[in-house]
Amino acid sequence: MPLPLTGRDARPGGTVIRVGGVEIGGPAVVVIAGPCAVESHGQVLAIARVVKAAGAHILRGGAFKPRTSPYSFQGLKEAGLALLAQARAETGLPVVTEVMDPRQIDTVSRYADILQVGSRNMQNFPLLEEVGRTRLPVLLKRGMSATLSEYLHAAEYVLHGGNTQVILCERGIRTFEPATRNTLDLNAIPMLHRETHLPVLVDPSHGTGHAWMVPRLAAAAVAAGADGLLIEVHEDPSNARSDGEQSLAPDAFACMMHELAAVAAAVGRAWMPSEAPLEPVAL
Amino acid sequence: MPLPLTGRDARPGGTVIRVGGVEIGGPAVVVIAGPCAVESHGQVLAIARVVKAAGAHILRGGAFKPRTSPYSFQGLKEAGLALLAQARAETGLPVVTEVMDPRQIDTVSRYADILQVGSRNMQNFPLLEEVGRTRLPVLLKRGMSATLSEYLHAAEYVLHGGNTQVILCERGIRTFEPATRNTLDLNAIPMLHRETHLPVLVDPSHGTGHAWMVPRLAAAAVAAGADGLLIEVHEDPSNARSDGEQSLAPDAFACMMHELAAVAAAVGRAWMPSEAPLEPVAL
Amino acid sequence: MPLPLTGRDARPGGTVIRVGGVEIGGPAVVVIAGPCAVESHGQVLAIARVVKAAGAHILRGGAFKPRTSPYSFQGLKEAGLALLAQARAETGLPVVTEVMDPRQIDTVSRYADILQVGSRNMQNFPLLEEVGRTRLPVLLKRGMSATLSEYLHAAEYVLHGGNTQVILCERGIRTFEPATRNTLDLNAIPMLHRETHLPVLVDPSHGTGHAWMVPRLAAAAVAAGADGLLIEVHEDPSNARSDGEQSLAPDAFACMMHELAAVAAAVGRAWMPSEAPLEPVAL
Amino acid sequence: MPLPLTGRDARPGGTVIRVGGVEIGGPAVVVIAGPCAVESHGQVLAIARVVKAAGAHILRGGAFKPRTSPYSFQGLKEAGLALLAQARAETGLPVVTEVMDPRQIDTVSRYADILQVGSRNMQNFPLLEEVGRTRLPVLLKRGMSATLSEYLHAAEYVLHGGNTQVILCERGIRTFEPATRNTLDLNAIPMLHRETHLPVLVDPSHGTGHAWMVPRLAAAAVAAGADGLLIEVHEDPSNARSDGEQSLAPDAFACMMHELAAVAAAVGRAWMPSEAPLEPVAL
Repeated sequence: MPLPLTGRDARPGGTVIRVGGVEIGGPAVVVIAGPCAVESHGQVLAIARVVKAAGAHILRGGAFKPRTSPYSFQGLKEAGLALLAQARAETGLPVVTEVMDPRQIDTVSRYADILQVGSRNMQNFPLLEEVGRTRLPVLLKRGMSATLSEYLHAAEYVLHGGNTQVILCERGIRTFEPATRNTLDLNAIPMLHRETHLPVLVDPSHGTGHAWMVPRLAAAAVAAGADGLLIEVHEDPSNARSDGEQSLAPDAFACMMHELAAVAAAVGRAWMPSEAPLEPVAL
Repeated sequence: MPLPLTGRDARPGGTVIRVGGVEIGGPAVVVIAGPCAVESHGQVLAIARVVKAAGAHILRGGAFKPRTSPYSFQGLKEAGLALLAQARAETGLPVVTEVMDPRQIDTVSRYADILQVGSRNMQNFPLLEEVGRTRLPVLLKRGMSATLSEYLHAAEYVLHGGNTQVILCERGIRTFEPATRNTLDLNAIPMLHRETHLPVLVDPSHGTGHAWMVPRLAAAAVAAGADGLLIEVHEDPSNARSDGEQSLAPDAFACMMHELAAVAAAVGRAWMPSEAPLEPVAL
Repeated sequence: MPLPLTGRDARPGGTVIRVGGVEIGGPAVVVIAGPCAVESHGQVLAIARVVKAAGAHILRGGAFKPRTSPYSFQGLKEAGLALLAQARAETGLPVVTEVMDPRQIDTVSRYADILQVGSRNMQNFPLLEEVGRTRLPVLLKRGMSATLSEYLHAAEYVLHGGNTQVILCERGIRTFEPATRNTLDLNAIPMLHRETHLPVLVDPSHGTGHAWMVPRLAAAAVAAGADGLLIEVHEDPSNARSDGEQSLAPDAFACMMHELAAVAAAVGRAWMPSEAPLEPVAL
Repeated sequence: MPLPLTGRDARPGGTVIRVGGVEIGGPAVVVIAGPCAVESHGQVLAIARVVKAAGAHILRGGAFKPRTSPYSFQGLKEAGLALLAQARAETGLPVVTEVMDPRQIDTVSRYADILQVGSRNMQNFPLLEEVGRTRLPVLLKRGMSATLSEYLHAAEYVLHGGNTQVILCERGIRTFEPATRNTLDLNAIPMLHRETHLPVLVDPSHGTGHAWMVPRLAAAAVAAGADGLLIEVHEDPSNARSDGEQSLAPDAFACMMHELAAVAAAVGRAWMPSEAPLEPVAL
């Protein structure tokens, strides 16, 4: 029983979402990169420049952070959003950041180009309904134990609310294997592409939990047909305030981007690094 | 590393939560029963009378329903809350109902005696923080793929917010087994009792997905040391608007309650059915 | 599609398996207890006496041990079988022990009253076929990630080979939860009882991995309708050569047996401890 | 605690296994292809020619089939082995086939170039010990719920027996996701390459269960660094006696091989299709 709005039949040619000059779901593989958490102006700006120089198209960074423990760093909140917007102004990179609470949507929408709904909120239905009422693209991450059917139903909530710009993202599922933080489910890529017209990204940072594995799984994701990647990068991973173990250092990120261009070509995807100086975006 | 507020050391004697005349976490096993979803005045009142007559202590019923599909019945919302309050006024049974959205808390708090946070929202941190600011007991269900450590950290958010009245509830976890809706994890009962001072209930309705299995797993839960049970009951399960397959009919519920009294006695727990006419509770 | 030989329809009244004077699958709950591994004459005899005095009906003990690492203790092999047979001669308790290799079946059959096929071999089809050709009862443990359907198909292999005396045993499944060695799936008890006529035991020692949890889950298993239990007992758990962490000390075992009698009565099961001196069994 | 024989430190440069003229674990990506089950002389020969023409290096085919149900086709047994050997004689392709029983090893070794130990037997320790005593390479598939640590310990059994020629193969793990037969765990590739010196293959046929997904996951596996692939191919998948749904038709296989050459090049791996007429191998 295909879903009426997210089902492939609803838009057989696929959905392309445009953010700034970037197309998500088009011929080119899109790379979204940045720190797990926004920590300071210097940190986010430095990382934004690094990832842009290496060819990334969009900047990611968390200002409102969902953390397992109430005693962990919870993010810089609105101050973090402002730092992301400054980094956008200085680099031209559009910004994606997480929104966790329906009451934050207005605030986050003032700073973000794409609203991220995180794994823990994949079935937070009031939040899905609210982002469904905005006109910003929504990056909806797969829940860590969500079946693909449940995942598409969650996306259906957003489209049902009137927002057709939903980007999916496989980020690893919970299994019995303790050697990796999650098990990256690349089977999801072709299966989602068959079932839905929405673009499908992959987050190998959360999907592995180990920075040294990220380039290999990023290459695998592109080969499997992913429309893009979500990558955690940090200038100094060993001192990151969260997820340092899975964040790539700038050199490793640049090196990975070089290889990804070749893999994209091998599977017939375009690769257009954003190295050209982009127009600064007005706040 | 025990958690400072939910860790067993914080209150070695255990937490007892009082709701109406009922003690949760005390010597007696507590039974919370009622329909999955509130459907009508007649339905909820009839079920409330049936479960009270059979010895249940608290009435459950969903007014705001988290549903996988946006096209499924989403609950009667505030009208449903009013029906629950009427059933409480007529039977004296305190009421537990789910709150899904931080913006609903004030509304739900006007009608409910206990706020339920459902499995899908176990790591909805803004919601946990908000229920942490209320003074109503919170029934926090385990997420369907939450480790016990993550579960206790979620409870810690509520206590950290200032609300010490948290009730835990194992409701089945997600595994590879397709024969049952979830796999009820009764290992969680003694493990949680060792790690935390909070009361621990079990929901065999969601934990099995099959009404005919519920009495056996309810007995098992009491034998494993559960402080209480959460049971879905419907007057006419085959016509229920949600979860009919896992709802007990009135006769089966009464029959189960009879057997549970014996099991409770066998493991040294008190069993005090609420058969005596309780004072109606003023709205 | 019910299975022709193991399906409930093939023998609606259920299968009762008689070993010595013990009935498995009858009205009484049967307790099989003993050490994980046979270590010495003194060890196995002492434990056999302890478990018999506490009311156990059958002695378990491993002589051929399937161990994850080739460098772990692999069991005393045939010398261990001889020690089990001596313990049987001195206590009258029938013996169950594992067979891992089709080539061992003749040897093990000379000493054992029941052949155990372990979890790792649940789909070792040549082994299933061979034990299907013997006339000894077979205790077939559920694989650690076997669905109930796969489990019944494995049992079907044994019956298909001509041996109708198969005893099932839930022993915990593999899930994402790290706090316990496995997740004991008590949902399996009523589901298997509905699908098959074969007796169903529960092994809470492997199902939890923690001795202190075993009595609670053993009680739960009896309440859920298990036909019996498989319990690891060691005189000196902290010095056991394998599975010490999940083995009950003698006092804890005796205490548990006392409580289980009450739980069995509460759910209408007979409880007939083998405290009366049994006739020594001739080798 | 690295394992003494399989640990990466034992042979930092990696293990290369030579079979006929093929190197497994060397610079080139190796492709093993063929039918799930050997069905007839015509079938296996036709498929052998097809996969060789498309560039495959080794022929796979099952003669002894481990089947969930005793009523399913169990393979042609020794007659099937003879057919594989004929196909080898006619095409020059070395042959890999499964051995399920320690008593079959001599027979299977007379026909096979590589002995496969299947997922269900990953912890069949007597079988591991026996293949450890042969001098044929062993293709040891990961168990469907084996952790990587358990998997390496299983390989250690074979090396401990004296056989250093072990080839690993990720083939999908069991998770909660019902849309695919298994979840292919490509995280395993870099993790195994770090932990062990043994070559690592990937089986996307079992890892997905859907033929139409195989080319995408095969490409992903090569991009992730796999040393080779194991692919089910059938001339007429809809009439295959087992696993037809996941078997590629000849055209799809050839098309996939073409793309894989490009992906291998993109990640710096050699690709040497066996299109040149090889010397027939004497029986």
